Amino acid sequence: MSHQATGAEIDAVVERVEEIGLKAELSRGEERTVIGVIGGNAYAYRDAFSHLGGIQEIVPITKPFKLASREFRRADTVVDVGGVKIGNDEVVVMAGPCSVEGEEMLLETARHVAAQGAKILRGGAFKPRTSPYSFQGLGEAALKMMAEARSETGLKVVTEVVSPGDVALVAQYADILQLGTRNMQNYALLQEAGRAGKPVLLKRGMSSTIEEWLLAAEYILSQGNRDVILCERGIRTFETATRFTLDINAVPVLKHATSLPVIVDPSHAAGRAEFVPSIALAAVAAGADGLLVEVHPNPAEALSDGAQSLTPPAFERLMRDVGRVAAAVGRPAL
Amino acid sequence: MSHQATGAEIDAVVERVEEIGLKAELSRGEERTVIGVIGGNAYAYRDAFSHLGGIQEIVPITKPFKLASREFRRADTVVDVGGVKIGNDEVVVMAGPCSVEGEEMLLETARHVAAQGAKILRGGAFKPRTSPYSFQGLGEAALKMMAEARSETGLKVVTEVVSPGDVALVAQYADILQLGTRNMQNYALLQEAGRAGKPVLLKRGMSSTIEEWLLAAEYILSQGNRDVILCERGIRTFETATRFTLDINAVPVLKHATSLPVIVDPSHAAGRAEFVPSIALAAVAAGADGLLVEVHPNPAEALSDGAQSLTPPAFERLMRDVGRVAAAVGRPAL
Amino acid sequence: MSHQATGAEIDAVVERVEEIGLKAELSRGEERTVIGVIGGNAYAYRDAFSHLGGIQEIVPITKPFKLASREFRRADTVVDVGGVKIGNDEVVVMAGPCSVEGEEMLLETARHVAAQGAKILRGGAFKPRTSPYSFQGLGEAALKMMAEARSETGLKVVTEVVSPGDVALVAQYADILQLGTRNMQNYALLQEAGRAGKPVLLKRGMSSTIEEWLLAAEYILSQGNRDVILCERGIRTFETATRFTLDINAVPVLKHATSLPVIVDPSHAAGRAEFVPSIALAAVAAGADGLLVEVHPNPAEALSDGAQSLTPPAFERLMRDVGRVAAAVGRPAL
Amino acid sequence: MSHQATGAEIDAVVERVEEIGLKAELSRGEERTVIGVIGGNAYAYRDAFSHLGGIQEIVPITKPFKLASREFRRADTVVDVGGVKIGNDEVVVMAGPCSVEGEEMLLETARHVAAQGAKILRGGAFKPRTSPYSFQGLGEAALKMMAEARSETGLKVVTEVVSPGDVALVAQYADILQLGTRNMQNYALLQEAGRAGKPVLLKRGMSSTIEEWLLAAEYILSQGNRDVILCERGIRTFETATRFTLDINAVPVLKHATSLPVIVDPSHAAGRAEFVPSIALAAVAAGADGLLVEVHPNPAEALSDGAQSLTPPAFERLMRDVGRVAAAVGRPAL
Repeated sequence: MSHQATGAEIDAVVERVEEIGLKAELSRGEERTVIGVIGGNAYAYRDAFSHLGGIQEIVPITKPFKLASREFRRADTVVDVGGVKIGNDEVVVMAGPCSVEGEEMLLETARHVAAQGAKILRGGAFKPRTSPYSFQGLGEAALKMMAEARSETGLKVVTEVVSPGDVALVAQYADILQLGTRNMQNYALLQEAGRAGKPVLLKRGMSSTIEEWLLAAEYILSQGNRDVILCERGIRTFETATRFTLDINAVPVLKHATSLPVIVDPSHAAGRAEFVPSIALAAVAAGADGLLVEVHPNPAEALSDGAQSLTPPAFERLMRDVGRVAAAVGRPAL
Repeated sequence: MSHQATGAEIDAVVERVEEIGLKAELSRGEERTVIGVIGGNAYAYRDAFSHLGGIQEIVPITKPFKLASREFRRADTVVDVGGVKIGNDEVVVMAGPCSVEGEEMLLETARHVAAQGAKILRGGAFKPRTSPYSFQGLGEAALKMMAEARSETGLKVVTEVVSPGDVALVAQYADILQLGTRNMQNYALLQEAGRAGKPVLLKRGMSSTIEEWLLAAEYILSQGNRDVILCERGIRTFETATRFTLDINAVPVLKHATSLPVIVDPSHAAGRAEFVPSIALAAVAAGADGLLVEVHPNPAEALSDGAQSLTPPAFERLMRDVGRVAAAVGRPAL
Repeated sequence: MSHQATGAEIDAVVERVEEIGLKAELSRGEERTVIGVIGGNAYAYRDAFSHLGGIQEIVPITKPFKLASREFRRADTVVDVGGVKIGNDEVVVMAGPCSVEGEEMLLETARHVAAQGAKILRGGAFKPRTSPYSFQGLGEAALKMMAEARSETGLKVVTEVVSPGDVALVAQYADILQLGTRNMQNYALLQEAGRAGKPVLLKRGMSSTIEEWLLAAEYILSQGNRDVILCERGIRTFETATRFTLDINAVPVLKHATSLPVIVDPSHAAGRAEFVPSIALAAVAAGADGLLVEVHPNPAEALSDGAQSLTPPAFERLMRDVGRVAAAVGRPAL
Repeated sequence: MSHQATGAEIDAVVERVEEIGLKAELSRGEERTVIGVIGGNAYAYRDAFSHLGGIQEIVPITKPFKLASREFRRADTVVDVGGVKIGNDEVVVMAGPCSVEGEEMLLETARHVAAQGAKILRGGAFKPRTSPYSFQGLGEAALKMMAEARSETGLKVVTEVVSPGDVALVAQYADILQLGTRNMQNYALLQEAGRAGKPVLLKRGMSSTIEEWLLAAEYILSQGNRDVILCERGIRTFETATRFTLDINAVPVLKHATSLPVIVDPSHAAGRAEFVPSIALAAVAAGADGLLVEVHPNPAEALSDGAQSLTPPAFERLMRDVGRVAAAVGRPAL
């Protein structure tokens, strides 16, 4: 429907769809309403709507995900996070510790990654852990520390939210809400995050197909939030030499299928710091719009995921190499 | 700790653990408190606790899941659902439609499955669907219909809950709370369900290892709820001839690893009704304590998962065959 | 073509196929020749052949595997191994050591499994091992020992062949040629085995789909050998609690898709002896035509796969239980 | 053992190993003999060999693959194919059609890829096909065409061999013997190829772990052939959006684990030409020593794998971009 379409016009279209015997699915976005029409030969009936007002365009969409599809929105979606643009030419690096363990270590890391060109600070306040006996994060205290680090360094902040009940709290502090791999199909959480008025970074479920991932994004988009960033972080396969298998193919596949920005988390995919730089550079060469990298001032003492965290000097080398590869594929230097 | 241990005795043990430099993890169950002690050679320090009161036993547990382990509880856990015992000798069948679509169809199905020997009625009120545009269930209306079907048939009721915020509502109507495959690592939901005072049927994540599954059970058990039923429902593999691959190995593996009852859902694993009976019989022969089967009065018209639902006559034949195979492996006839 | 079709009649049909612009694929079996006709609407041209002689029937086959399909041969294929019938009502058990390690141990095992009702002796002479440094089998010496064990016990003999160059040698001693999981797509070997005039037991590739498996069977069948036995032995998945994941679904799927007999190897699927009986019983309940089980007089000393071999007493218990479950699903007692 | 070690010295070491109760495994290479010593604490006995002659070095190797390991050979193995060096700084591109379909198309492709900087011509003469009814390659005729294309363009030639019986024939024409994904564990073929006196390009089994792959390489190396090139070509996962999932992690993992050169085949991994360039650039950025790319003058008419073949103009663009990314990661321009 056009941006100016009235409620009555929308109702009229829905009524017509149902008269024909097709099914109408309304997606009311902030900017406009999309009416999905589902049924065998739905597109064949397009002339049956020619007399109705408020229709901007009738587009045939055969994919199960609609709002996320390239067919629906041809131009790249650029997510603007307080001036940091994701999905644009620049390769945006988000870096920081797996968990926020304390003020000191967070600030030290934030200063370092900002100095190297990172634009966004990552850090876990609420951690979904496989075992109930593992460290689950510092919660709101960690959120406050991240907000302070933002004040000092100018970095934007991305952090995970794991429960619908925490969305409002996390949205108060974070610039981007991260939804993790175990929650990719936590629909209550997706919808709550979709309504929070903040960009959402949606990690791929570790065993989810790309289609399921885009359908999960659709849950957020259908709440009227168009600022979704997809993050490939490795899938579960039979291989045990690495923690997960980074699906590098996903980068070009997504660039064809959707307008949403695509970033890559090489740290979880590799599980070992020594493999992270190669994978990160591969992601940039493949066309990723950004990276999400774990950095820890002292990985050996990290409370979680130490083995995969880069040391500050390793991060410095990585950023230099990322700049070179980004330039080689036609993206401006960081 | 013994059942009579006081709060002071518990505190004293925890303090001693920390003095030694180990880590203490408290699991306060309804019946008793377990103090997990974690650290390199924790068991070597067992004499350091000999002077403290309230300790019933010191057991070395090397598995990451503790309360769920056979080492922790040797005897089979029998979950008593208002007189229907799961984990006992009898093979318990739970049957019904994928989604509750209306009062009529639910009652018709309930009467039929009860007449054939099923003890528990399954039916979806809240459906987690891959697409935001698919039918998501009738919600509380469906819960009321299930309660009515219980009144009429005497069947107990199991139904899924998908959001922490709905746990209290669902627990009001259901005899067993079902946690689905997409929510196996939704920790907020696991914990909320663990506190609801109802048995929990925990489906395996479609790409979760058995160890991760038992750790998810541990989230529930650590809330003091020992009535957890594990349900194998097929895992994601490269094979596309069936919807999922039933991991039949999981039945004996779980019987060795945990005291919890194990049931099998052949309907989701197969994805096609014609394959369901063979898989169901295999599950019983392998030692499963029960089955969760989809039955629909008219599968061709089902709003979800019609292809995998048994017709009433097919269910009748299955129940006869289940009785024979159960007897062959030494379980009383249904 | 009919059994009496002449070479000239066959040529005439092929010529006609090509005239029409379709592609003809000849499968010359011992009993008869099948002419596959490939092309867009091939079946629509069936009348174009009405004037030609020697044609028995024109059947539309849409599956990529033709000779293996149920559409091509509706009745179950029963493989007759010197009087032992596989694919008939009886559940046929093949048992013996992973590797033939010596005359004594082989004879001892053979006598035991024969006494318990096994009909076929399994044993490895040529072993395909992941490492070049592992024990690779005793070769022809082992084949001779198996032939001796056959003379003494009356058991038939199944053993693996791993190279096209060894097919003639192995066929001299064995009653059934086994093709292993690593060789399922070794097409030179499949074709050579297809020409050897002996039944072939084709194990599923550990990462092959059911369709690829049936296409591998097609390589054997297309050599004119219709005696192919399919053996499910577990597939590779992300689960590490067992060596492989037995795909129990494959049993009913194959029973629908093909006329060929289907047996199950629970030993490789489980990888641990304690899990083997449950899985074996599951296979029988699901409708398998037989089992392939590893038995070793002293598993702890086995040169290969000791952890998954049953002891003689465990095998005795298994055979008793197999008899019960087989009876429960309507198959005659062993 | 040192290069000058005599047979008697080798025998003496083996005898000593067995006296101690350990197991000796001889790998007689062309250049020297390696004696693997296997057993619980083998390395602890190193002094027990101090009095024996001909020993060059005693190295603790804990990996199951020995000759392939970085521990065994620290420096990168550079495979010299008639002057084209693989494993050196330069990124070497091998390109050509999936199957050799005729002289004209092969020459046309060869001239094009040579002009763009490819150094090696790929092309299938013997094709292992999933279905017995698919095009299986032109055999020796295709080998002759490749030899002609070599004469005209100066490109070296790589082509697949699928059966031990064909190794001698293929080695007569090819500069590199290719072993395909379905044959990675065809041990008879690995050994025959190891003895042919030509470099071997070993593709990863589509469901093989990296460790199994290195053990397959070990079969070749243990025949005295040290010129093995590893080729990652995608693994089988649950994802269906692409033909396979390229395991980009494998590049850095292999660079740590082995001295052998590592190349990547983006064409099979992607299965669709539009995704090939992104994946190819990712491989170069990750540190691959080369690429194996399918190019066809007219992909729409290819007899096999047309969907994944690049057109000549797409290949030209790819080569330009490969040069840029190679330079960005410090490798000389092609």
